[in-house]
Amino acid sequence: VRYKITIEYQGTNFYGWQRQDNLPTIQGEIELALKKLTKQNIEIFASGRTDAGVHALGQVAHFDTKETQPQNSKKLAYSLNFFLRDKPITIIDCQQVDENFHSRFHALQRHYKYQIINRDAPIAVGADLYWRVYGSIDYKLMQNACELFIGQHDFSSFRDAQCQGKNPIRIITKLNLKKDGDCIEVNISAKSFLHHMVRNIVGTLVLLGKGTISIDDLRNIIAAKDRRKSGPNAPAHGLFFVGVDY
Amino acid sequence: VRYKITIEYQGTNFYGWQRQDNLPTIQGEIELALKKLTKQNIEIFASGRTDAGVHALGQVAHFDTKETQPQNSKKLAYSLNFFLRDKPITIIDCQQVDENFHSRFHALQRHYKYQIINRDAPIAVGADLYWRVYGSIDYKLMQNACELFIGQHDFSSFRDAQCQGKNPIRIITKLNLKKDGDCIEVNISAKSFLHHMVRNIVGTLVLLGKGTISIDDLRNIIAAKDRRKSGPNAPAHGLFFVGVDY
Repeated sequence: VRYKITIEYQGTNFYGWQRQDNLPTIQGEIELALKKLTKQNIEIFASGRTDAGVHALGQVAHFDTKETQPQNSKKLAYSLNFFLRDKPITIIDCQQVDENFHSRFHALQRHYKYQIINRDAPIAVGADLYWRVYGSIDYKLMQNACELFIGQHDFSSFRDAQCQGKNPIRIITKLNLKKDGDCIEVNISAKSFLHHMVRNIVGTLVLLGKGTISIDDLRNIIAAKDRRKSGPNAPAHGLFFVGVDY
Repeated sequence: VRYKITIEYQGTNFYGWQRQDNLPTIQGEIELALKKLTKQNIEIFASGRTDAGVHALGQVAHFDTKETQPQNSKKLAYSLNFFLRDKPITIIDCQQVDENFHSRFHALQRHYKYQIINRDAPIAVGADLYWRVYGSIDYKLMQNACELFIGQHDFSSFRDAQCQGKNPIRIITKLNLKKDGDCIEVNISAKSFLHHMVRNIVGTLVLLGKGTISIDDLRNIIAAKDRRKSGPNAPAHGLFFVGVDY
């Protein structure tokens, strides 16, 4: 029986999603909880891996159990949360799904947000959930620049050197900024992203906002298709995997 | 020279505001930073104490230095933040003020907010910043009940047994609720509050939302002027001291 789970986690103290020997990871913790619950070795498959320190509000994964009859999926979520109770990992939804459902291959859109606090003072409340950017930022300029990224582009300038994607072309369907006091929230959606693409885009937008680069420079960076041209990777702890559409 | 500082802190791992021997407190940490910076023993005076686990986005305090000339207050904040860098405590503003200014006695309005997440799953992201309330909640009913608290009342039913305030009469100038997804934010303002008053009001509003008490029960609880009638104290970790008006 196949189940689809939606997962919230705070990535701060984990080495990312992917299971690693002797290191705490999100996948590792959930598989451990499944083992405690079912006494089976069950592998889970995520819609996309997240890096160390990155959070999720709606990561999706699927797994199969060896039963022939489906169990109450609400109770399954409750039981998994019992075994995860000491970890900042929560199953927020669990559904029994068709055996052909695949969390990664059937994803139509992935949604991320990135949280920035723009002020000089360090962050005391929720410091692991925001990137603090000091100095003045031209928010309007950053907002106007979003349209340069939207649509289908070769995002080679915004992929990590380690990125294993064969094709650097991606389609950004949404990229916008919201401001609330000194908090800036970047929202971005696409069917899929290259490795570090969101954090590279945010890092480059902040360079623009700080006046380090101009909007013409940004156009050239996108056109260059060369990672060495773009801004520094924004830190992991401001990034949230918000959800997946199927 | 007298300075007024505005402070943000995450109260999770502190024994509240007030200095205590051998226990980490907000006051203790800031006074220690001041000592490291000035080599003087400086006492700071807050606009109001917060309990263990309660956070602040805009606590205000004042203190005097032994200098005859004022120093650059922006630099003073920066230096204090240097000595506080390992703690979730940040000086977000520092101003030189008149020597008669008093953070506590001159406060005209104090603003608090309380953050609730209403869902069955535990909280993984920012678990120390929200009270998770499971089961269904009648948000509209809670919203309508706010008006019962607004204005001048005897709040004896909502004060802690340990409360040392001589007069149980307080004037609530604002009490409203905002909803965003499964997050409910309670905003409340008054010149001053009784001990545990905000958390007792929130705890009682949630009892109403859950249907444990009716709106008539709530009217009776307020009229009873008896702490034993009201709901349980909402936990400290959902409460934020947002700011003070002078």
